[in-house]
Amino acid sequence: MNDGTRVIRLTDEQRIDWLRLIRSQNVGPRTFRALINHFGGAHAAVEALPALARRGGSSTPQICSRQDAEREIEASRKLGANLVAIGEADYPRRLQMIDNPPPLIAIRGRATVLAMPQVAIVGSRNASAGGVKLTQRIAYGLCEAGFAIVSGLARGIDAAAHRASLSTGTVAVLAGGHDRVYPPEHAELLDAILPCGIALTEMPLGWEPRARDFPRRNRLISGLSLGVVIVEAAKRSGSLITARLALEQGREVFALPGSPLDPRAEGTNGLIKQGATPVTEAADIVSVLQPIMGTELPAREPPAPDGEASQSVEPAPDERTRIVGLLSPAPVLIDDLIRLSHSSPRVVRMVLLELEIAGRLERHGGGLVSLL
Amino acid sequence: MNDGTRVIRLTDEQRIDWLRLIRSQNVGPRTFRALINHFGGAHAAVEALPALARRGGSSTPQICSRQDAEREIEASRKLGANLVAIGEADYPRRLQMIDNPPPLIAIRGRATVLAMPQVAIVGSRNASAGGVKLTQRIAYGLCEAGFAIVSGLARGIDAAAHRASLSTGTVAVLAGGHDRVYPPEHAELLDAILPCGIALTEMPLGWEPRARDFPRRNRLISGLSLGVVIVEAAKRSGSLITARLALEQGREVFALPGSPLDPRAEGTNGLIKQGATPVTEAADIVSVLQPIMGTELPAREPPAPDGEASQSVEPAPDERTRIVGLLSPAPVLIDDLIRLSHSSPRVVRMVLLELEIAGRLERHGGGLVSLL
Repeated sequence: MNDGTRVIRLTDEQRIDWLRLIRSQNVGPRTFRALINHFGGAHAAVEALPALARRGGSSTPQICSRQDAEREIEASRKLGANLVAIGEADYPRRLQMIDNPPPLIAIRGRATVLAMPQVAIVGSRNASAGGVKLTQRIAYGLCEAGFAIVSGLARGIDAAAHRASLSTGTVAVLAGGHDRVYPPEHAELLDAILPCGIALTEMPLGWEPRARDFPRRNRLISGLSLGVVIVEAAKRSGSLITARLALEQGREVFALPGSPLDPRAEGTNGLIKQGATPVTEAADIVSVLQPIMGTELPAREPPAPDGEASQSVEPAPDERTRIVGLLSPAPVLIDDLIRLSHSSPRVVRMVLLELEIAGRLERHGGGLVSLL
Repeated sequence: MNDGTRVIRLTDEQRIDWLRLIRSQNVGPRTFRALINHFGGAHAAVEALPALARRGGSSTPQICSRQDAEREIEASRKLGANLVAIGEADYPRRLQMIDNPPPLIAIRGRATVLAMPQVAIVGSRNASAGGVKLTQRIAYGLCEAGFAIVSGLARGIDAAAHRASLSTGTVAVLAGGHDRVYPPEHAELLDAILPCGIALTEMPLGWEPRARDFPRRNRLISGLSLGVVIVEAAKRSGSLITARLALEQGREVFALPGSPLDPRAEGTNGLIKQGATPVTEAADIVSVLQPIMGTELPAREPPAPDGEASQSVEPAPDERTRIVGLLSPAPVLIDDLIRLSHSSPRVVRMVLLELEIAGRLERHGGGLVSLL
């Protein structure tokens, strides 16, 4: 499934370093990429974290120890989960193309499912009987057309989507660790998924999902998929977040229409009014996606596991002060920072890394950063 | 309401001639215009009908007598209905712009309603309770925004649309004569409409509507309106004909989404899939129509009540044979007939008129004709 781009394969040592880096405090997917690019590899980046934090104005962040990383890899293996790095053969190609792909995902189940073309089906937790029926009908139709179904293992529409695709290929994306299934009563559903399907997460073992982990997880649901089908969704529901993320990622957004009197249709009707493709049956979706399936994905290289380290750069104190002075809680473009600070891009990026590791900076999409 | 185009006013004599011509056998709105254009007025056209029919190969068609025309005008007046000619001040300006506007319409009620901007609301006869509720809600919202509501006085959605706009302005377009209300149980609804609203028809008094009169009537519903709202519609329903006619006339088409499990939503969901604007509340419609309301209508002149008669032209027998030989039951462009026959446009048009009055020719939209 990685035709076209370079396939990498981490050594055990590299995998431990990657895991240590992404599990360390204040390191998210974007920072991971920036650190790897700057230091030429995960090992050097982990080593650099204390100095970066100090220069960014805080004490040493919690750094994941080698022991903890080994323990997670071992415990995952016992659960049947493999930690797959971006760029490796089992890492889903489409997910690799999103703006902030997780450097490592833990995959349980039949990995070949991830080689199938995928469509996400999501919707209300308190689904109506009609919504469940429609979900089944559409999932069956998509499965018949050769698609695997991606969803979030939630109650309602998500569960119906998984159940309808158990035998053909289903992908459950979790917001917590593999050993922290949410909702707990879906542990049995998960057991039913694994023989022919997949569960995956970017979160560590033992991670209890919090509210903010669900939107984060939703970017993986849309990121894995050619398109996202929203079956029932109230106003301001999580499914609409998935739809928005799908749009940002250039994925197709499909919505099922519903009566204007049905509050469960407010979200989907709203999406249709905003330009989502209205669908009432699987054929509507297949006819849009089949032409896309053949197209080449834009190549985007994974970070090199061990590249050349950039020449070390330490900003002068006044440069750092000037750059920090240009930042505020309102997001600003990194390009503008470079222009306004009169510092070199390398220096600006280094100051941003320092602030980030110190827990003082947030990276948004589109090259925007803000002070926390 | 006729700002911009010439307003005409027929004399009593002219009105009688117009009525005689349109009520004569084989004369529809298109033929009426062709005859008036050729003979310079309705009087000369009526006189010419027997000769045209003879040359077209049939005996004299039933020609409406002067007495019958006077009787219809008088009987209409007693019912409170005025026969208004295209181009007259009370003739709705928008209706004048369609491809085949009726030369005369009989209007009952408060004529000023026709000066309001109009929106049609149509849908299933066997409407659901939800459909009726939505119709009311949308009609109220449109009335509040200053629109009059146009519909077909049918059971279900139509009746709900009229009832919701009784006090603000409603237009019932009939498929039969004013004294042949269909369905009969809506006679009381019609009585409630007339104090503040309008009933209109192009059909003569005493005309019992047949199945084929309803699609014909539907072109007036859409023709009067800036846009047409389809509330509930099954597959292949009459409301979809109105939607198609609205598109052909360049009117906006709005459709209410519904559950894919609801057969009453199949038609409206289908329209949305084909590009109709999905709407769930009146504001959605108002926001599309308000910018259009200000725009100037394209000017289209009504036929002159007494213009210059064209020089009489009688095709030579072999010319007529050649032109008839080019016709078949498959529609063909008049322009192609002129080119292929090597006859002058005037001669071709005269032969077509002859065939039409003889009941042997059908005119379609877009300059197409076929043999019957």
